[in-house]
Amino acid sequence: MIEPILRPARGPGRWDGVAELRYKEEGAPTFRDVTRRVLFEDAGGAQWRYFEIGPGGHTTLERHDHTHAVMILRGAGRCLVGGTIFKVDERDLVSVPPMTWHQFRAAPDAPLGFLCLVSVERDRPQLPTADQLAQLRADAAVDSFIRA
Amino acid sequence: MIEPILRPARGPGRWDGVAELRYKEEGAPTFRDVTRRVLFEDAGGAQWRYFEIGPGGHTTLERHDHTHAVMILRGAGRCLVGGTIFKVDERDLVSVPPMTWHQFRAAPDAPLGFLCLVSVERDRPQLPTADQLAQLRADAAVDSFIRA
Repeated sequence: MIEPILRPARGPGRWDGVAELRYKEEGAPTFRDVTRRVLFEDAGGAQWRYFEIGPGGHTTLERHDHTHAVMILRGAGRCLVGGTIFKVDERDLVSVPPMTWHQFRAAPDAPLGFLCLVSVERDRPQLPTADQLAQLRADAAVDSFIRA
Repeated sequence: MIEPILRPARGPGRWDGVAELRYKEEGAPTFRDVTRRVLFEDAGGAQWRYFEIGPGGHTTLERHDHTHAVMILRGAGRCLVGGTIFKVDERDLVSVPPMTWHQFRAAPDAPLGFLCLVSVERDRPQLPTADQLAQLRADAAVDSFIRA
């Protein structure tokens, strides 16, 4: 796909010629209120996406070998990366290393929209097994944060 | 280089742990009032940079085989891509195809800050020869826009 030279923004997180997509093809209830937009199919070898989580929603708790390079573009929320929960606001940069459990959650009263760069060629996300989930839940702060 | 997991934003176009760099190493007067920040050295195979042009400033008029995937993050201005001049505002997406002359200019009264994705492995930019410049200047609108 060749993108047009200019695609004007139409409000926060909306662009002419950029379709709203399902977050994941699978309908499994591992996430809540998340949309996906592909801004550039191939930005120098990376796929440039925009995700938006509605207030109170969350992405899937997962890990994979590929990295995420993230910039918060809209709203506020928190994210788990590894064993740590971070508060995130507009323009903050988040780096998710390989094989690191991560989950993004929007604030209760605000959406959380973020840019996320991944390699065009990448592995599929892994969901935690029951044992891995128990390990994560051993930390009280993580236990109360995650939705799985 | 491994980026920290979180680098908070400190105002528009500024982040903890992200250094302001020279736009180009060469000191040639092909640009005016431009800074560069590398947000992620390797974001899925792409280098993720932030450029900021001061009011009235401009980047170098150049072309190269690699593409640019751009999102305006701050301010307003115009850009030449190929033979067309586009007005750009916050959040607009700009795609610069291979071997296409391009130049970004900030508005007289506002900076122009933009995200720009390029492949980590890429060719060096080319400046226009006198003949190529004359060809570009054959168009009156382009002639009055470009700074070279």
